[in-house]
Amino acid sequence: MLKPSHRGAHMPASPIRKLVPFADEAKKRGINVHHLNIGQPDIETPPATLDAVKNTPISVLAYSHSAGNLSYREKLVHYYAKNNIAVEAGNIMITAGGSEAIVFAFMACLDPGDEIIIPEPFYANYNGFAVMAGVTVIPVTASIEKAFELPAVDQFEAVITSKTKAILICNPNNPTGYVYSREELEKLEDICLRHNLFLFSDEAYREFSYGAPCYSAMQLKKIPEQVILMDTISKRYAACGARIGAFVTRNKAIFDAAMKFAQARLSPPGLAQILGEAALDLPDNYFDAPKAAYLSRRDLLVARLNAMPGVFCPNPGGAFYAMAKLPVDDADLFCQWLLESFSFNNQTVMLAPASGFYATPGLGKQEVRLAYVINNEDITQAMDCLEVALQQYPGRISIQ
Amino acid sequence: MLKPSHRGAHMPASPIRKLVPFADEAKKRGINVHHLNIGQPDIETPPATLDAVKNTPISVLAYSHSAGNLSYREKLVHYYAKNNIAVEAGNIMITAGGSEAIVFAFMACLDPGDEIIIPEPFYANYNGFAVMAGVTVIPVTASIEKAFELPAVDQFEAVITSKTKAILICNPNNPTGYVYSREELEKLEDICLRHNLFLFSDEAYREFSYGAPCYSAMQLKKIPEQVILMDTISKRYAACGARIGAFVTRNKAIFDAAMKFAQARLSPPGLAQILGEAALDLPDNYFDAPKAAYLSRRDLLVARLNAMPGVFCPNPGGAFYAMAKLPVDDADLFCQWLLESFSFNNQTVMLAPASGFYATPGLGKQEVRLAYVINNEDITQAMDCLEVALQQYPGRISIQ
Repeated sequence: MLKPSHRGAHMPASPIRKLVPFADEAKKRGINVHHLNIGQPDIETPPATLDAVKNTPISVLAYSHSAGNLSYREKLVHYYAKNNIAVEAGNIMITAGGSEAIVFAFMACLDPGDEIIIPEPFYANYNGFAVMAGVTVIPVTASIEKAFELPAVDQFEAVITSKTKAILICNPNNPTGYVYSREELEKLEDICLRHNLFLFSDEAYREFSYGAPCYSAMQLKKIPEQVILMDTISKRYAACGARIGAFVTRNKAIFDAAMKFAQARLSPPGLAQILGEAALDLPDNYFDAPKAAYLSRRDLLVARLNAMPGVFCPNPGGAFYAMAKLPVDDADLFCQWLLESFSFNNQTVMLAPASGFYATPGLGKQEVRLAYVINNEDITQAMDCLEVALQQYPGRISIQ
Repeated sequence: MLKPSHRGAHMPASPIRKLVPFADEAKKRGINVHHLNIGQPDIETPPATLDAVKNTPISVLAYSHSAGNLSYREKLVHYYAKNNIAVEAGNIMITAGGSEAIVFAFMACLDPGDEIIIPEPFYANYNGFAVMAGVTVIPVTASIEKAFELPAVDQFEAVITSKTKAILICNPNNPTGYVYSREELEKLEDICLRHNLFLFSDEAYREFSYGAPCYSAMQLKKIPEQVILMDTISKRYAACGARIGAFVTRNKAIFDAAMKFAQARLSPPGLAQILGEAALDLPDNYFDAPKAAYLSRRDLLVARLNAMPGVFCPNPGGAFYAMAKLPVDDADLFCQWLLESFSFNNQTVMLAPASGFYATPGLGKQEVRLAYVINNEDITQAMDCLEVALQQYPGRISIQ
């Protein structure tokens, strides 16, 4: 039998999805599984955006412009301006989700063998896109004790080589929930300026910053042509299934190169572009309700976690994720045990073991990511489960 | 300024789109441009498929399964069975257009440096996907004099090396309109069997075969685990903008490898999956009308072309393309001249120069591709223009 390519064989499987069979088995046994493992918001997709799709008369659902509908890109200029990001429609390319924006950035800026530095823990799918592009991910480690703030500049400097072409950040961060400050962004700016590197910035969770507004890499003044913004409406408007994102850069040569990849795949999803464009007509206070919901959940979740003996959870400033350190031998085994061998009041909880978010082997073994995309009542029940589970888990260890 | 990657710089631009600025200029001058250059059908997208999107209640537009909705894949099993292709839902992965199915096939089966053989002229975007995957396209040349039938087996054998991993065909063919016979498919089967190669089959135009039904590579009995079907609803249901395709294979290891790429990008477009699934409920006679329209246009177009002095156009058996050899010095220059310097009754015609469909430099210099995706009245006017243009074009040469 013909086998997959080397790259197909070495492509990492999703670390979040590998526990799914155990969750399915638990459900078959009648157990209610609280899903804190994936970033699928439970928030309603704004009905006005879905209505726009329904109410747009379509006779021939034709290819759109490869960069997306101009009317949508022109409206996005205003959206970005409201977020202190000055761009033109010609800097914006609509993509099939944030995923495709990441692929275009990797393909247009990086060659096989090039290195990209990413603070770890990081969104695991970056590994997959790196494999597609033949690029090597070089991690710099952020520490849970420091709430996952940006690693020190000398940690970056220590791993920069002649092959380093870019630094990638996710801000607000998935999986840590950390929101990088303007000062931290400026440190990255200096590094990129001195070493002539691209700065890729994944800002999928821009609106979900619970302190100061998130400072965008696109606001950096000294490296306007080195920044690539990778964006998506998935979390912003609870429209993950739409698959609409954006690739944004002021670097014309990079934009033109990315356009060739965009032309090869012809156009981004057409129906969902209508949804994305309509989302820009939502009232300015649209984000108040989901943001308040996430904030309330965060406060509940983090308080419950830190009240459990041996558990440490830094307070995340944004997105809808929290990372927690648990008093367990191995979070992968613990998360599996939660689904396979544990229940409390006929319930259990599904978490994402953090090892998959680290590139350095052995790191994150006691950490898990929790996505607060369920309501407070469910979070309370999930935390009740976790508290009991940590008392019962045979692999419990004490944390100093 | 930071520059694009090598791969970004070497990514080929779309040969079909490079004349667009000249067409835009012509339109600004008030000239009516007949578009025979791109494969965007003018046929209406079936209203029932758009209605299905409108009538599906959606509260949260969530990620679908990374392989696409199971209900859709299960229905596709029946669709394929009707087309003599026996597969299970577990063999089918829904993709963002046929384009993504091609990317998954290249990524999951081929490594950088590998070679893939494609009969030329071929769909130009295969070049782009090859650049993304770091794969080298090796052409074998089909001849317009032989109506672009499959090149002889020894032409394939002559270019097979230790690096050859796959043969790619498009059947019915874009850009030639040729429909490969069962016998030709079996020749490919033998080559793939002897040399242990994948056979990638792009069957986007399956229903538009004007003679015998198109014989699918998936029907080949000796190489069930070597065939990858790359499919799309774009042309089938005149839904190019939906961006829904499929990656289909019975090779479980390849399917599993492709799934990892699919999981990295999370899910295919959600709204358009509803449209794709609804299309499978169209009555069996749905294709009668578009097929009759295309056939009538083909007959008109080919007759008009062959009636022009010095023009040769083999009769295409499928898809909605024809390739014609023109009595001109250089089809690229001629197509540009048509837009820049010519008009007849305030009209002109936009064609796709064939050079972009050949990988061998210098081939196709007198050939153009014509997409018969406009109605017969417009085709007549377009052919009137072309006939006059060929008389007036300063670079006209005589063809023996």
